[in-house]
Order: sequence, then structure tokens, then C-alpha cells
Amino acid sequence: MNPPISRYPVPALSELPADLRERILQVQEKAGFVPNVFLALAHRPDELRAFMAYHDALLLKEDGHLKNQASSGRGLTKGEREMIIVATSGANHCLYCVVAHGAILRVYEKKPLLADQIAVNPLKADLTPRQQAMLAFALKVTRASHEVDKADFDALRAHGFDDEDVWDIAAISAFFGLSNRMANVIGMRPNDEFYLMGRVPREKKENP
Amino acid sequence: MNPPISRYPVPALSELPADLRERILQVQEKAGFVPNVFLALAHRPDELRAFMAYHDALLLKEDGHLKNQASSGRGLTKGEREMIIVATSGANHCLYCVVAHGAILRVYEKKPLLADQIAVNPLKADLTPRQQAMLAFALKVTRASHEVDKADFDALRAHGFDDEDVWDIAAISAFFGLSNRMANVIGMRPNDEFYLMGRVPREKKENP
Amino acid sequence: MNPPISRYPVPALSELPADLRERILQVQEKAGFVPNVFLALAHRPDELRAFMAYHDALLLKEDGHLKNQASSGRGLTKGEREMIIVATSGANHCLYCVVAHGAILRVYEKKPLLADQIAVNPLKADLTPRQQAMLAFALKVTRASHEVDKADFDALRAHGFDDEDVWDIAAISAFFGLSNRMANVIGMRPNDEFYLMGRVPREKKENP
Amino acid sequence: MNPPISRYPVPALSELPADLRERILQVQEKAGFVPNVFLALAHRPDELRAFMAYHDALLLKEDGHLKNQASSGRGLTKGEREMIIVATSGANHCLYCVVAHGAILRVYEKKPLLADQIAVNPLKADLTPRQQAMLAFALKVTRASHEVDKADFDALRAHGFDDEDVWDIAAISAFFGLSNRMANVIGMRPNDEFYLMGRVPREKKENP
Amino acid sequence: MNPPISRYPVPALSELPADLRERILQVQEKAGFVPNVFLALAHRPDELRAFMAYHDALLLKEDGHLKNQASSGRGLTKGEREMIIVATSGANHCLYCVVAHGAILRVYEKKPLLADQIAVNPLKADLTPRQQAMLAFALKVTRASHEVDKADFDALRAHGFDDEDVWDIAAISAFFGLSNRMANVIGMRPNDEFYLMGRVPREKKENP
Amino acid sequence: MNPPISRYPVPALSELPADLRERILQVQEKAGFVPNVFLALAHRPDELRAFMAYHDALLLKEDGHLKNQASSGRGLTKGEREMIIVATSGANHCLYCVVAHGAILRVYEKKPLLADQIAVNPLKADLTPRQQAMLAFALKVTRASHEVDKADFDALRAHGFDDEDVWDIAAISAFFGLSNRMANVIGMRPNDEFYLMGRVPREKKENP
Repeated sequence: MNPPISRYPVPALSELPADLRERILQVQEKAGFVPNVFLALAHRPDELRAFMAYHDALLLKEDGHLKNQASSGRGLTKGEREMIIVATSGANHCLYCVVAHGAILRVYEKKPLLADQIAVNPLKADLTPRQQAMLAFALKVTRASHEVDKADFDALRAHGFDDEDVWDIAAISAFFGLSNRMANVIGMRPNDEFYLMGRVPREKKENP
Repeated sequence: MNPPISRYPVPALSELPADLRERILQVQEKAGFVPNVFLALAHRPDELRAFMAYHDALLLKEDGHLKNQASSGRGLTKGEREMIIVATSGANHCLYCVVAHGAILRVYEKKPLLADQIAVNPLKADLTPRQQAMLAFALKVTRASHEVDKADFDALRAHGFDDEDVWDIAAISAFFGLSNRMANVIGMRPNDEFYLMGRVPREKKENP
Repeated sequence: MNPPISRYPVPALSELPADLRERILQVQEKAGFVPNVFLALAHRPDELRAFMAYHDALLLKEDGHLKNQASSGRGLTKGEREMIIVATSGANHCLYCVVAHGAILRVYEKKPLLADQIAVNPLKADLTPRQQAMLAFALKVTRASHEVDKADFDALRAHGFDDEDVWDIAAISAFFGLSNRMANVIGMRPNDEFYLMGRVPREKKENP
Repeated sequence: MNPPISRYPVPALSELPADLRERILQVQEKAGFVPNVFLALAHRPDELRAFMAYHDALLLKEDGHLKNQASSGRGLTKGEREMIIVATSGANHCLYCVVAHGAILRVYEKKPLLADQIAVNPLKADLTPRQQAMLAFALKVTRASHEVDKADFDALRAHGFDDEDVWDIAAISAFFGLSNRMANVIGMRPNDEFYLMGRVPREKKENP
Repeated sequence: MNPPISRYPVPALSELPADLRERILQVQEKAGFVPNVFLALAHRPDELRAFMAYHDALLLKEDGHLKNQASSGRGLTKGEREMIIVATSGANHCLYCVVAHGAILRVYEKKPLLADQIAVNPLKADLTPRQQAMLAFALKVTRASHEVDKADFDALRAHGFDDEDVWDIAAISAFFGLSNRMANVIGMRPNDEFYLMGRVPREKKENP
Repeated sequence: MNPPISRYPVPALSELPADLRERILQVQEKAGFVPNVFLALAHRPDELRAFMAYHDALLLKEDGHLKNQASSGRGLTKGEREMIIVATSGANHCLYCVVAHGAILRVYEKKPLLADQIAVNPLKADLTPRQQAMLAFALKVTRASHEVDKADFDALRAHGFDDEDVWDIAAISAFFGLSNRMANVIGMRPNDEFYLMGRVPREKKENP
């Protein structure tokens, strides 16, 4: 028998409101399994809907900025957004987010070592100085956001981030701070699949 | 000239998408002014929509539980939910949330001293032991959610909270942890109106 | 019935030694009520006398320096001294001192928002860079005085403070550190009057 | 040349007001030298007077309680008061107070090892459980006075301390918290004599 | 080109003293590669010899106690010793030790998820209450060894650990505290091989 | 009766393996007594052998570098190595190491005040800027080695330390971090002799 994925009751897919069920089935089709976060948070459908809307607003955009944002910067790549999630979730000791987003980070960046490096100690990770600055700010938002001031914006600007990028870094850190706290309190368990994902290079299909 | 309410550009009401503008006008009609959080976060309309949906899922219900939640507990009153916000926002040194939700707490509880007490030191506030236990848990979620375990649930149960109440306390703490971080990073300024609200008893209208 | 103002017995004014009673009556005449600190600490008359002597040596002087101090600086205004008290008392989570000196700060500076801003997060308060530097040093004295060194003096000098000003900032922080600890241990309760004081502009007397 | 005993100007004895000079000469006669704290703080005569008055109110009483205090407890011995000073000054990293009051503690208790033990780690010192409880409370007052509550009073009562003893422990901790901060900021240097005092047993005078 | 495995020069195997070279070749034969710790620390041969002697004294014994230790307890299994290393190295943010000993832990325990769980948050790991108590003590030794007292020994005894087991837990935590610090300072890089080791079940050899 | 020097059984010299007994008798002859660390750790002979080998590799070399180390720096003097031990052991609240190595530091440096100064607050000790930089790095290794980076090496180089010196500072801090943890856990008691050693200048033998 598998350990429970939450301290709270987990609804069956069939019990869920249609919109949530449909969204979850889409994810399942793409990923091959249903990440436990969807099922665990579905205990509160309204909150899950808001959670997914926030998540999508921050993460479901292509590399760089949204079209409707005036920005002089290059924006954050999808991989960089996952770096922020892994680093801040590590600081918050959130097992679910480190393991699940570590997997996504490995897949996006095609670097099988990077997620473990960032989770243990971002300063020792194979990152550019720009990415190091990004994570240093994300960790400050996580641990001492009340001390953020103009000097932090200046430091990021020196690495080519513009104000919209700073908002992105802050918002991703803040949103996963929420996610980390919920996962920690309800004892959300990562799917076993995440642990290995992205560690072994996919073999290319042989041509017949 | 007034100081800016955000480090970021603040859109005019007229520039906002219709749904957001309508919602904000409703708030304005009820409160007599537009709380700055709506204008400051409207810099990112999609994020604001998700923010409001999350906020409403957690706070826009009557005292006690939602109808569709099976719960053996009494649930949290609207005042208690604001106590959680003020205590955790105090721990996160978020000026906007302490001042704005301190005002709402004073109005809900009709206790003009309570918000300042909770913001400075919840242990010295005029609260019941049940409310003290609620805030102790909220602060643990805020500061060390990774150490939450069964003993915390037991301690709350001893005060009459059930598991749904615990989720509520945790989710409000987690959501305002997000809100505190965004407000701190963008330098969100509370409306001057909040500081005095609920401190002076309203005079009753005299009968003619 | 009102909650007690101290865990310890509080002497009646009539029981107090004549010198203390007289001093307290003077304060009452000026303020309109007796601040609870006088009554609560009067449980130990000798300590109260020393407390008041220290308080007066640090705070009962006009704006700027005492006449007998050779100083090249401008000195601290009465309002600035209260800013130090509110900031350090906030860091020490002392309800009495934040509420009582927050009131005095509002009255001195005629700025009804300032005390709440400083109590929650001095970095977000409406202050000059000079005042920010003053509070940063006061908080370092409060939290890590053993790390104070020449660089701290230099930083303050760059804002126009001289060595006598630095002593003043340190001594006020240190004295209210004592006061905060006593108030926290004995559960000293602020008078209700302080909470509202200085928030509503006094109406000018109409001319007849 | 000796290193300075303070960052601030140190007045000559002859420059001091008569009352302070007289008091200092008395100390010198008794101790054989003038402890630097008197000279360093004499830079501000009014503050030194208040400092000495507070010091005397807390420490210049015989073992046990003052006559005019109704108390059911045994009170603190002079040695125990010095234990509190050494432990809290160690926590505040105050060189002057650890060295000077370490010396006094050795003299009072006639235990040459005790002060070093308490300064480094009170838990490893040769103390009774009652004294360990006393120091645990003193350190809580020093580090987190805002968390002091009824449970702390109960724990001390279980060791035979009454409420007046608790006040004494708290007040000594709070007063030396002030003293530690001033000494740290002004760089107050302990007299060389203190380091060796009480370490070597005095030889008894031989009878003729 | 591979990133360097140390900030310091790394000797070639051929340059090493014969005893170290032989030992390292033995490890290589067993593991299939030379763990970087041997090469990085070989910069100081005498220190490496002492390091290995300490390591072997603590870890190179069979499950349970050494033959010459009188012990009433069951002793620590090899897997449990690795749990201690991963947990304390996680607390010290040591990338080398988390990754290398995480691999060894997976191999010993044949549980591919356990190392990641312990590194991120031991409280959420799939462990027995006895193992949780073991790690709680190891983390106390790591973070606040000066607060260890009789109550900690009692708590471990209640889980069946005897005093020799407690020494083992403490000594492993202390030794890897040393190792973590050296690895962090010299920037010791884990071999790529460790990251995947023990994650994928070995396929059994088919019988012919 | 003397208090025990360890929570664990302490073997008699006669029970020890010959090599350990011989080494201990050598120390006794030189120092005039057997430091308790040898007896307390002899409970585990293999660990003691490794401990002494590590100790000797780091400390038993003359002032400056070992002959076989290519180094451009001046190296650490024996006194400076003891400064590192006293400062880091003070930070770890290890009574044995502060007292025992404080004694050795006084003897090496012939400065009777220095050890107490460093144990309480290195910033207030009578040290050169170079020595202050050395201790600042040692304390960073002790408290937050995962944050050590190139900037720390640069800061030390500016004071004339080369990379081999940095390794020495780090390794001494790391090794005594191990020693501190073991001493704290087993309750290792310093010999009474250490407390006074090096405080009183030795009288020169009179010529006959």
C-alpha cells in the first residue's frame, strides 16, 4: 500500500467538478501521470482554481516576457523560473516542490545535476552570475522581503534584469512560498515518478 | 503631492479590463475608497484576478464553514481570520497588510485596541486561549512550516478546531505570506484612511 | 472590569512615597491621565526613581544637545528620540512602549501615520535618509551591539551625526531595551488613551 | 601606553562633579583601583548618576530580600546576582561586564572556575538545578522577553523562587542588557586587574 | 572541459604517497571510479590520512556494534549511519556530502527516494520513529551541541539506543560537520556518477 | 570527590593500548598533568588515534608553513592557530576547548588577557587587522561555511594570507568544530589547571 499523499481526504477524479477534472486529465495526458498537487489541493476546489490561475499567470508563458508587457529585459526563461522554484522551495524545506520542480527543471534545462545542486546550495550550482543574482534575490524575498529596497533592484539591473523581471522573480518566489507552506502543512507527497525524471537521457527512437 | 503607492506603474481605473474595473468600483462603493492593493497589483491583471479569486475563496464566506464543507468544528469567524492576517503580516513586517487588515479587524471585532496588540505581540493581546492557539499555529506556518506535524493538529483539536479549520488557518497564513512578500517588494503603501478606521466609535444617528 | 496593568501588585497613589506621588501627579496634570508605567514600576520605588532619572537624562532636554555638551552636530530632535524608541521597542515586541511612545511620536511630529510605519517596518516609513541611518544604528545596538565598530560611527558621521549624537542614539536604545524587558516580563498594559492619541487633528478653538 | 578605555573622552577625576568624585574615591578605596565603567560613563554625569542609582537598587542589598519587601522566597544571594550578570553579559558578548563581574563572582562565591564556566556555557557550569533555572530565565529575558509568560513564573516557583525573586532576576538581566549595550558601543575596556582577581586563593596572614 | 573538483591543486594519483595511492586504487576498484573527496583532500596527505582513519573508525564496521564494545543496544545499521550523514550535511548545505552519501544511502537501503527526502526535510522522510529520533539528535549536535543534556540521552534511550549508540550518532554528526566545512570551503565537487547511483534498480543477470 | 570528566566511562591509563598510553605519558611529562581530552576520548581508542593524527597534522608544525608546502604567505604562527581555536570554540560554546586552548594561547602569546577577550568577543580583542580578518573567516567557516566564496579568499589575500593559509584557517576551524561537538555531547570537563595557566608571569629562577 502506498503512503497517503495528503493528511486530508483526497477526492477521486470522478468526484471533482468538471472543469477541474478536465484540466487534470489534460495534465495527465501530457505528463503520463497526475501530479499529486492537483489531487491534494482538490480537497478545496475554489482554492485549487485560484491556485492554478496564479500558477498559470506566472509560469505558462513562453520564454521571455508576455506580449502585453513593455519590457526592456530579456525576461526569464522557463528553466530560470524553475530554478527560482527549486531554490526557494529548498529554503522552505518543501519536499513536494523540490522534487516535482527539480524534475521539471532537469527536463527544461537538460542538465541532470542542476536541480540537486540548487536544492542543496545554490552558490555551488553550475549557474551564470546573472542566474546567481536572480536566485540571491529570490532567496531574499523568501526570507526577508521586508528588507528589499532600491539596492536590490539596482543589483539585478546590473545583470540585465528590468523591473518586470524583478516582479517575476518576486512573484514566483512569493507564490511558491504559499505553495511550500500548504504542501508542508498537509504533508503533500511527491509522486515517485518525479524523483528519476530528467536524470537519464532519453534514448532516441531508432529509425526502422 | 502624495508618495507613490507602488514602485511600479499604477494603471488608471479607466485603463483596466472591464471585469477588474467593475470589481474595484464595487469595493469603492462599499468602502468609500479604493484600497491601494487593487491598483498596485492591477499592473498585472492576470495575477490580480488570481489573487482576488484566492482571497475570496479564503475570506468571502460567512462566519463558520462553507455550506459544502463537512466539518465538526465551529469554524473561524471573520474577525478571527483577520487576526491571523494581522499576526502573520506583523511577523513578515508588511506595512500594507498590518495597517489595512488591522483596520478591518477593528471594524469586525469592534475592539479598537486589538489590531495594535496583535501586530506588536500576539501573546499580549486580549484574546481567548483558543485564539492564542490559532495564532501560534499561524505563526508556525509563517516561520517554520516544514516543522508542522501531527502534534500541531492535536494541539489545535484540543481547542475545538477540526481539520478544516486547520486548513483555513494554514491557507490564510500562506496566502498572506504571498501578499506580504509582494507588498514588501513593490513598496505597496496603505491608504491613509486605514490608519484611523475602527478606532473611534461611530456615533449613532439620532432619531428625529 | 479592566484587565490588570501588571502581573505585580500596583500601589495606590496614596501609598507611594511623597516624591514619587508628587512627580506622578505632575505628569497626570500635564497628560490628563497617569501612564501605567509609573504605577507598575512603583512596586519598586528605588528602581522607579532610578528609572525616571535615567529617562529624564536622556529625554528631558530640548531639541538638540544639552547646553553643557560640546557638540558639532545638530543633535536629535524630540521627535527623533521617539522614533528610536518606537523602532527598538518594535524590534523587542514591547506593547507598552510601542503604543505609549507611538502616541508621543505622533504628537511631537504631528504625523499621524509615522508611528505605525516605524513599528511595523522602519524601512517603509516616511523618513529622511538621515533618520533611516539613525534607526539602522539603533536597531543594531538593540540586536547586535557587540558588532558595533568604527564603520558604524563613520556611517552616522556621513549623515551629520557627531559622536555625542551616536551616544544619544545608543543610550536611548539601550535604556528602552531595559524598559522593554521589564514591561514584557511584568505584562505592563498601555493605557487605552495612548492608542488614539495624536491620530485625529485637534480642532482649533473657535474665536468667540 | 595603555589602550584607551572608551571611544569617548574620559574625564579626569578632578574634573568630575563632587558627588561623583566622592563615590568613585570610595570605590577606589575599597577595590584598590577605579573600575573603568565609572570613568567611561562619567562622560555623561547625569546618566552615570542614574546608572549608579539603578545598580545600587538592584545589587547593593544583603543576601536575600530587602527589608521592606514582603516575600516568601529566600531571595537571591549576592553571588547569584553576579551569576545572572555573567551569564547575560556572555550572551550579549560584553567583554567589560563578563570580565569585571566574573571577577566579582569569583570573589563572592570563592569558586575560581565558576565565572569562566558560566560565560562560555551556563549549562556546563557547576550550579544547582535552582541556579540553572534562574539563569535559563535570565537568558530568556535577555533574548526573547516578549515570550515570557505564566509558564516561566511557574517553572521558577517550582524551584522556590517567589514573584519578587523573578522581578529581581528580570531587572538585573534588563539593567545589564543596558550596560552591555553601552559598553559594547563605547568600547569600554575592563581594567587589567579584573582578569586575575579571585583566581588565586589569598594567602592567610601568618600569625606572628 | 569539466569544472574543477576543488579550488586547490589536485594531485595526480601518480604523485601521491604509496599508501594513499593504494587505498584510492582499492576504492576505485570497488566503486568503479575515484570519489573526488580522496583527490581533493590529497592536497594535504597527512590530513587525508587522519581523515580516512576517522572515517573508517566510524563507518567501516558491520551493522551493529564493534565486537570490542560492550553495548546493550542494537547499534546503528550502515544505512542509518548514512541517514545521519545526509541529514546533517543537508543542514550544513554541503553539496558533496549530500550527493555522495545520498548515493550510498540509496544503495544500502535499496530505497531510491529516501536520500532526497532526508536532504530536503527529514521530518517528511519515510522513516521509523526510532530513526526520526536519531536524526533529531544528530541535527541538534549539528546546530546546538552546547544544549545537549541528559534529556537528550533519555529520549534516545526510550527508542532503544544505548550510550554507545549516542556516541556513534554524535561522532558521525561531528565528523561530517568537519567534512562539510572543508568541502564547502574548497568547493569540492561531487562526481557526476553519484547523482544517479541507486536510483534505478539493477537488472539481475539473466541465467544462461 | 571531583566531578566526572565525561558522561562516558573513562579508562585508566593502565587499561589503554600501549601506543596511546605512551603518547599520553609524554604529554603528561611535558605539561605536568594529563589533559582530560585524552582520557575522555580514549573510550574509543581508534577514534582517539585519528583525532590525534588530525590534531597533529594541523597544529604540530613550527610557526609558518610546513617545509613541504609551497606557499607565498608567512603562514600562521602557533599563537594564531590557538586564536582560531579559542574564537571558534567560543562561538560553539565549548567549555573544554575555550578553557584548555585559552591557556595554551596565553602561554604561546605571553598575553594573559587575550584568550578571555577572544572568547567573549573577538572584535574587542587586542589583535592586528590581519588577525581580525583571520578570525572573521574562521567564524564564517564555523557558522556558515556554505556561504564561503571567492570574496572571502580575496579578503584574506589582502591581508597577506595565501591559499595554504586559508586552508589552515578553515581546517583548524572545522577540526575544532568536531572537537567542540564531541566535548559538548560527552560533557568533557577541563582540568582545573588550565583556568589559571598563563595568567601569572612565571618568576624567573634566581641565580644562586
